Amino acid sequence: MAFLRNAWYVAAWSFEVTDEMFPRRLLGEPVLIYRTKNGEPAAVQDRCPHRFAPLHLGRIRGDNVECGYHGLQFDRSGACVHNPHGNHVIPKACRIRAYPIVERYGVLWLWAGDPEHADPSTISDFGYLVEAGRKTVHGSTLVRANYELINDNLMDASHTQYVHMDLLGTDAFARSKHEVTQDGETVHSNYVIPDSEIPTAYKDYFADQSQRVDYAVNFRWQPTSLVRNSVTLTPPAGTEGQRIERTGSHFMTPETETTTHYFFSHTRNFDLADPRVDARIRRWQQSGLTEQDGSMIEAVQKEMGASRFDELRPVLLSIDTAAVRVRRVLAKLITAEQQLPASVSTAA
Amino acid sequence: MAFLRNAWYVAAWSFEVTDEMFPRRLLGEPVLIYRTKNGEPAAVQDRCPHRFAPLHLGRIRGDNVECGYHGLQFDRSGACVHNPHGNHVIPKACRIRAYPIVERYGVLWLWAGDPEHADPSTISDFGYLVEAGRKTVHGSTLVRANYELINDNLMDASHTQYVHMDLLGTDAFARSKHEVTQDGETVHSNYVIPDSEIPTAYKDYFADQSQRVDYAVNFRWQPTSLVRNSVTLTPPAGTEGQRIERTGSHFMTPETETTTHYFFSHTRNFDLADPRVDARIRRWQQSGLTEQDGSMIEAVQKEMGASRFDELRPVLLSIDTAAVRVRRVLAKLITAEQQLPASVSTAA
Amino acid sequence: MAFLRNAWYVAAWSFEVTDEMFPRRLLGEPVLIYRTKNGEPAAVQDRCPHRFAPLHLGRIRGDNVECGYHGLQFDRSGACVHNPHGNHVIPKACRIRAYPIVERYGVLWLWAGDPEHADPSTISDFGYLVEAGRKTVHGSTLVRANYELINDNLMDASHTQYVHMDLLGTDAFARSKHEVTQDGETVHSNYVIPDSEIPTAYKDYFADQSQRVDYAVNFRWQPTSLVRNSVTLTPPAGTEGQRIERTGSHFMTPETETTTHYFFSHTRNFDLADPRVDARIRRWQQSGLTEQDGSMIEAVQKEMGASRFDELRPVLLSIDTAAVRVRRVLAKLITAEQQLPASVSTAA
Repeated sequence: MAFLRNAWYVAAWSFEVTDEMFPRRLLGEPVLIYRTKNGEPAAVQDRCPHRFAPLHLGRIRGDNVECGYHGLQFDRSGACVHNPHGNHVIPKACRIRAYPIVERYGVLWLWAGDPEHADPSTISDFGYLVEAGRKTVHGSTLVRANYELINDNLMDASHTQYVHMDLLGTDAFARSKHEVTQDGETVHSNYVIPDSEIPTAYKDYFADQSQRVDYAVNFRWQPTSLVRNSVTLTPPAGTEGQRIERTGSHFMTPETETTTHYFFSHTRNFDLADPRVDARIRRWQQSGLTEQDGSMIEAVQKEMGASRFDELRPVLLSIDTAAVRVRRVLAKLITAEQQLPASVSTAA
Repeated sequence: MAFLRNAWYVAAWSFEVTDEMFPRRLLGEPVLIYRTKNGEPAAVQDRCPHRFAPLHLGRIRGDNVECGYHGLQFDRSGACVHNPHGNHVIPKACRIRAYPIVERYGVLWLWAGDPEHADPSTISDFGYLVEAGRKTVHGSTLVRANYELINDNLMDASHTQYVHMDLLGTDAFARSKHEVTQDGETVHSNYVIPDSEIPTAYKDYFADQSQRVDYAVNFRWQPTSLVRNSVTLTPPAGTEGQRIERTGSHFMTPETETTTHYFFSHTRNFDLADPRVDARIRRWQQSGLTEQDGSMIEAVQKEMGASRFDELRPVLLSIDTAAVRVRRVLAKLITAEQQLPASVSTAA
Repeated sequence: MAFLRNAWYVAAWSFEVTDEMFPRRLLGEPVLIYRTKNGEPAAVQDRCPHRFAPLHLGRIRGDNVECGYHGLQFDRSGACVHNPHGNHVIPKACRIRAYPIVERYGVLWLWAGDPEHADPSTISDFGYLVEAGRKTVHGSTLVRANYELINDNLMDASHTQYVHMDLLGTDAFARSKHEVTQDGETVHSNYVIPDSEIPTAYKDYFADQSQRVDYAVNFRWQPTSLVRNSVTLTPPAGTEGQRIERTGSHFMTPETETTTHYFFSHTRNFDLADPRVDARIRRWQQSGLTEQDGSMIEAVQKEMGASRFDELRPVLLSIDTAAVRVRRVLAKLITAEQQLPASVSTAA
């Protein structure tokens, strides 16, 4: 299965890339991310065209990257700008791929396709990540599974009652209502669970932990593959109590066919300066996302081996509606892209 | 090389499977073994047909298995009996493979072929394993080699003079007589070594360790692949002294083409309650079987790589007669099975 | 890419092989090296033809090797000379490959091709390794890369200014002159760097470390793949000061397509008995060769994956002239060998 290339992918959280070279494999390719002297992000192929040395074994020289093997220098456009040897002539073929990269919302967005078509205005709006009056806690993990298995996981929240029973389980599960809607390439998976106990992961946010809540969860998927997850816990109509809103973000970027950089964050609009709340969120990210979801998804990938998901003829249930739509959107986009002239579908 | 499927394989020693889920790969397939409330063994495919989660990551609910990802429940026949979601409808295709499994002689026997043909009366008689007046010490190890290499090892006891020289070597080796007989699909490899010193591994069983013995060893192989090993040490005719009889069992079940679950046990009719004798036997199982045989067989497999044994054109010696017969019986049975209609040769 | 087979390869330094069996994979084949009672080297296939047990798991019996599985004995010509079983008949096919092996210059040279064509007089002259009035410090490492990548590294010394900047860097790099010459199958890569600071790795050899030197480095490559590296540091004409000469040896023997036994040594004609000089050289061998070169070359191999070097269309620079010639000599020799009748090109 090819990757969608003409798309903005999350390459890293902004804070991950400082003044050192930051190598990361993305969509199967070795990418070297760094910052120029004025702090702008740059992303180039992490492989010298001379003898294939990884460039991150070299060093940054001003705004350029110098190969650590023989000293060729490349600028952020991928052009070789210095050959220290012989008559200093630079062969015409001596260049590396450069990737358009944009910093926005605390995210470094990398365009994996034809640079001619890289339009930063098409980056989806994740302004809430950096909105005033909010606090975002970031994390990430490498999942040893194909990125679509993480989409599947996110778009079918019924798994929380099993995989996350201890943290998100609710006595009102049987009353849950699920609605899936689609708006172009955007898929929504909405859950409403009326008159629920407060799930354990949220109990500490409430003064009265025995309070009942209407528990609503929305997942919004956009290509490729960006998920916003909104959670509200509201006192049922006619009752008193606190109301809580949280927004999670889940961004999946393939490392290879069977491994995925999984970026996640949680944004809140309360207790902004309370480090105990940060710590609680980090514990959830570690226990719920990295350990519980991560280990289940990796077990599925291991069981699938080298087979594709549809080859194995999965049995579909009603809970899979959103995940199936997401797979269809992705398949359609990838097929469409592959029918483009080669020069547009890839810049390699 | 395909495995023989219409056969009873040792899936586990009885005591290995308690009230917890017991996952084990057998003949290349993920199998989940467990016990129902009344203690009966059950064996089903360890993979949910919905999203391919290993079922052993879930839990046992009564006599059923519940998937840990989305809560589907399967009974021991492989039928899905509960879908907690939506309108609770269970898709027709939602079922898993179930394996006939029988508990006998302290062994859990699993039928790997067409369940229609699973006849427990065809399980070979290993009654001595649980006979009154006997004590059996059990063990097992995972050998990183094809199961036929273990057959070869067992059916040619001349290796004891080299691999196990310290424990089983004898000064009478040159006088040993070897006879191979075959009775249908059963192959016997018999050794008689008259007037031998007592091999080190047996010395502690004798009051007079300098006593001479007639040392006899018999290996009986039955499909697939079950070996009984009888050893007697008898005072030579006309002399006095002790007599010792021991029976070993060696059961090989492929995990994959190149790894094998090797089950072994030793049954004795003396000193039944003496834990020092148990300890001595366990030491032999660890030193002789797991370490000495295991490391030699694994070295052979590593040397063979992905090649089949016969492709490498082994040089045959007189000592290989029994091993060659065993390979022929197996090849014949597997070929015959592959000519059956697909519905009979496999139940997948 | 096939290996050149009709050639003398370095199998080991002499001191590595004592009175114990010495197994080593060479050119993809398992080889067992040992010494006969009178100390002569022997090299045979490290695999019994009976059941493919590695012979190094057995033992040496006089001048023969006894298999540790069933006791077959082989002499240094590869003939089976003892079968301890049955009527002791030795099947005609029961023999193993023997490799011509010669000890010279403190090196065990192994002929990997047709033994009929093994002529020790064709071993290249490395007499300086054992010349009176000299001291040689030996070392070796296993590099996880194809041997040609090490050739490339050695024949292009411009990498020292980058990979070994801390140890061999010079302020006179811009003045360096490079000349490549070829004499039949021998390729020379000569560097002259006039009026240089003393590189750090050589500073300790000089009384006046601030002295300027004419720094000359020569690499001589011979099949397959033997490199002599001569270094001289001379006071510039008209100035006073010390003169230093050192000779390095670099011998590459493929273990597999992607791993290489890299043997290196440094020979000097001064301070012969000074252990501090030995220690300095060993530090260079560890830091410069095993760590700096080794990790760069391994990173290149990893980046190349399963691709061949030329498939990846490397960009060539002026500094690659010698490396390219070496690759051409090798390719020509290998192609020529493959056109020989099979009996000549390999003795398998």
